[in-house]
Amino acid sequence: MSFFETLKFDANGLIPAIIQDQANKRVLMMAWMNRASLERTIETGRTCFWSRSRQQFWVKGETSGHTQLVKDIACDCDGDTLLIQVEQVGAACHEGYRSCFFRSVENGTHQLKTTEPRLLSPEVLYAKK
Amino acid sequence: MSFFETLKFDANGLIPAIIQDQANKRVLMMAWMNRASLERTIETGRTCFWSRSRQQFWVKGETSGHTQLVKDIACDCDGDTLLIQVEQVGAACHEGYRSCFFRSVENGTHQLKTTEPRLLSPEVLYAKK
Repeated sequence: MSFFETLKFDANGLIPAIIQDQANKRVLMMAWMNRASLERTIETGRTCFWSRSRQQFWVKGETSGHTQLVKDIACDCDGDTLLIQVEQVGAACHEGYRSCFFRSVENGTHQLKTTEPRLLSPEVLYAKK
Repeated sequence: MSFFETLKFDANGLIPAIIQDQANKRVLMMAWMNRASLERTIETGRTCFWSRSRQQFWVKGETSGHTQLVKDIACDCDGDTLLIQVEQVGAACHEGYRSCFFRSVENGTHQLKTTEPRLLSPEVLYAKK
């Protein structure tokens, strides 16, 4: 079955893309793609998203150097979510953590605890290009 | 920091929840929660989603018996996506696969290939209660 025919973009022409570290299966982040950014992702082998706040393409790692090399692109049964395996260079999170999901709910409370070390400060991350 | 204060629900009061198999880190599915379904998930220890098409709560496995026992709830840096680790009973996908992401793009093509075995047919899945 054709990949693009299977996909369902939402009313804004977007589809959520879950990004997973191929090596250790850590979920790194979730961001949005439109058809053009997905085509660029496939063509270039690097993740390219659509920024809803800035209304522009956003090539992951373009500023920080922390790119994502695409290893596999899967879609779900309904065709409305993508799961992309990557080789992550450095930190996926703009706050300097490997994964954006660096906080979990502490058992039996409604408080968050940090579950992984910060790799580098955001200042270093974006001074680094 | 308080979990619920950190979260950002979208204009429809929803937040995407990525569901991951705690045992082998396979991403199983992505679905939507509102605040009430998230509260029910925390209270009951079983995933409860909000069905956008049916506009009602949807306790995973209620019909099929293929429940998800919650082991960890994380949120991302922006507070607009959840990552929930679960113990999955049986198949997460309504098509009878373990994961909803059972198809990937075949290298160098725009075609999809199936990447995991079907555990059971949808007819068996929903006859099973």
